[in-house]
Amino acid sequence: MTKRIIIENGAFAVLNAQSGQTSIKGTMVIENDRIVHLGDSLPAQFDTSDAERINGKGLFFLPGLINTHGHAAMSLLRGYGDDMVLQSWLQEKMWPMEAKFTSQDVYWGTALSVVEMLKGGTTTFVDMYDHMDEVAKVCEQSGIRGCLMRGAIGLCPEDVQDAKLKEAVQFAKDWNGKANGRITTVLAPHAPYTCPPAFIEKFVQAAHDMDLPLHTHMSETKAEVEQNVKDYGLRPVAHLEKLGFFSRPSFIAHGVHLTDEEIATLAHYHVAVSHNPGSNLKLASGVARVPELLRAGVVVSLGTDGPASNNNLDMFEEMRLAALIHKGVSGDPTAIPAAEALRMGTVYGAKTISLPDVGLLEVGMKADMVAVDIDQAHFIPHTDLVSHMIYSASAKDVKHVWIDGEQVVKNGECLTLDEERIRHETQQCFEQLLQR
Amino acid sequence: MTKRIIIENGAFAVLNAQSGQTSIKGTMVIENDRIVHLGDSLPAQFDTSDAERINGKGLFFLPGLINTHGHAAMSLLRGYGDDMVLQSWLQEKMWPMEAKFTSQDVYWGTALSVVEMLKGGTTTFVDMYDHMDEVAKVCEQSGIRGCLMRGAIGLCPEDVQDAKLKEAVQFAKDWNGKANGRITTVLAPHAPYTCPPAFIEKFVQAAHDMDLPLHTHMSETKAEVEQNVKDYGLRPVAHLEKLGFFSRPSFIAHGVHLTDEEIATLAHYHVAVSHNPGSNLKLASGVARVPELLRAGVVVSLGTDGPASNNNLDMFEEMRLAALIHKGVSGDPTAIPAAEALRMGTVYGAKTISLPDVGLLEVGMKADMVAVDIDQAHFIPHTDLVSHMIYSASAKDVKHVWIDGEQVVKNGECLTLDEERIRHETQQCFEQLLQR
Repeated sequence: MTKRIIIENGAFAVLNAQSGQTSIKGTMVIENDRIVHLGDSLPAQFDTSDAERINGKGLFFLPGLINTHGHAAMSLLRGYGDDMVLQSWLQEKMWPMEAKFTSQDVYWGTALSVVEMLKGGTTTFVDMYDHMDEVAKVCEQSGIRGCLMRGAIGLCPEDVQDAKLKEAVQFAKDWNGKANGRITTVLAPHAPYTCPPAFIEKFVQAAHDMDLPLHTHMSETKAEVEQNVKDYGLRPVAHLEKLGFFSRPSFIAHGVHLTDEEIATLAHYHVAVSHNPGSNLKLASGVARVPELLRAGVVVSLGTDGPASNNNLDMFEEMRLAALIHKGVSGDPTAIPAAEALRMGTVYGAKTISLPDVGLLEVGMKADMVAVDIDQAHFIPHTDLVSHMIYSASAKDVKHVWIDGEQVVKNGECLTLDEERIRHETQQCFEQLLQR
Repeated sequence: MTKRIIIENGAFAVLNAQSGQTSIKGTMVIENDRIVHLGDSLPAQFDTSDAERINGKGLFFLPGLINTHGHAAMSLLRGYGDDMVLQSWLQEKMWPMEAKFTSQDVYWGTALSVVEMLKGGTTTFVDMYDHMDEVAKVCEQSGIRGCLMRGAIGLCPEDVQDAKLKEAVQFAKDWNGKANGRITTVLAPHAPYTCPPAFIEKFVQAAHDMDLPLHTHMSETKAEVEQNVKDYGLRPVAHLEKLGFFSRPSFIAHGVHLTDEEIATLAHYHVAVSHNPGSNLKLASGVARVPELLRAGVVVSLGTDGPASNNNLDMFEEMRLAALIHKGVSGDPTAIPAAEALRMGTVYGAKTISLPDVGLLEVGMKADMVAVDIDQAHFIPHTDLVSHMIYSASAKDVKHVWIDGEQVVKNGECLTLDEERIRHETQQCFEQLLQR
């Protein structure tokens, strides 16, 4: 039977319009997992007898937000080490604790992040971590869409490297297309500075063999770029190009330190960039050249990075940071306008991870959708609702969320996961990690 | 009769501790408008028979946030013109609309902002605008603490200038100490670039005569600094110094473009700076040299600026921006640690506007206080709660707010103002402004 949802009197973000108009008022019809109508009124063709009817008054509907880089289970280390120099933070705080993570820790830490993301309007997330079967299980249970990969650090003997590659390949095979198609998989050597060239080449070959995209961290810090030049005589973009990385559909996280030439290379190969403004600021990595990337035609989307370096998973905040910092740093108040920031958080995210049918509220697209409560003081007057989403909204303004036409958040409560239990379990996990 | 509130099992931010510890668990006692006890347990000396008892479990108590620069009534223009070049924004959007503001517009616009601020944990705000009697009325009605001033632009004939000065002086006289002492007043020529030197000198003289502090916009944009040099042969700091401005207790808004010498001058005269990171980024004014100001011993607090250039009044966001952008821009991840950002949003704000008994949770201080709901996914695990306030929290996480020991927000609802009516009236005001 066709499941039908009709939303009347709503305001909807339209981010692809030729007219420059960014929102329309009207009626949306969802059948099963797809948007089948969006217009002024309800056409007679739809059988409305069994439909769920939603009064959209006071709500603004956005495409679900897409978080294109992160390590969800690191929520277990939120606030465990802040305001520290990167190397001390990694060596004294993150790595010793992460080394102790069990699959149970990854399960609960991921669940904590997924609850936060769903409640904040994120309907798709990218996750690069270890014990990825657990992450995939959380996707199955929660209803979230996940682009998942086992991130592999290659600073280890070759047999250990090979085991990691095998695990990454096996995970990608096992889970691609699972959870009603909500899970897609990617192959991901961690970074040029943590993976020897030969190890990266094996991932590239596997990606060709399996017809999968590639993802990696690249040019996050100045020091890492300098080290790459010292070790390989090339900056990271040329290095990855040489290793064949860009011969696959691929996207890189960060891309903070890029030359004009590197930007042109990324554009040439259609490599997308996951911009992580909050993490880059907090870890003092610098400010990515996002206006230049966009001008060059590079697809730039947004990621929170892990919760320990952010420290939340609020994609509204990342969109706002993207809209604000590039104005302040460039001196151009027209850099990254509100609608472009919203595209970065939605449709450009979908392009980044090669999902053709999410990221826009249009007929034929998947019904991945967020309803924001706009009857609140900080959204009054109702002038430009897209502007309000970027410059005034936060995760906590999200009222309802649907993924594949299934409601996963209702009146601010997650319907698919037991938040209270997850909060309890994750607090326990953290305390036990301290003691192990 | 003594009104007594006892908060048990709470966690409290302590920002002045020699130990470096930033939070303690325990019990707080409030008598009337003051904190009379904060410690592990409840001493026997307190008569608890009539006390209101609050279970602090799951709450983190902060000093009320202090917003040291803004124009509250500009909420009526929120989202009316974004992503524009400063001069077009002012000349085509803001000024034509503001010229039409009536006292009723200012009343409702201010009320909208005050609802938003109270619900977001702001207990004191600075306001520089016109029709200030209306702003003062909103302070009386809402229970908020206000540091208020009639901002005077002097680009007009001398008789109009004199009328403005007279109005500013009258307002300052009429309202200083009113609303049970919650209102203090200040004199404020708008900015060196909008006020001729002789006009500024008249304000300085009036401030001496009335023993009041001074406030102004200063060095917000590079262009404005260059114009000052062209017009007066001096950069703004030396210019204001020459006019005697710093001979009064004073604070300036923005201070984005400052030389080392100017920073030293501000420190010498104990001039405080209201840093407005959100507005400075959005209007592309630049990034203020906050780490250098703090190192020089200048008191730096935080302001949202008007809601049309922000576009919300979320002081958690300003604290986070202050903590994040100075790391990213300086390359130093230890710049502005979380506790320092919280001090900027609280006790440094109190110092900025010369309020000796707010801004800290300590015995003897006024009970201006915020309770944040920390039983939420984005605050788990409970590691460093001050870090969580800066890197994870938003206005919407505030559960309760007290000012002078009176509860003004309970379970996220404003007790003193009718939010629904205010939202309706402000929407009407905006629509009528468009038509006038």
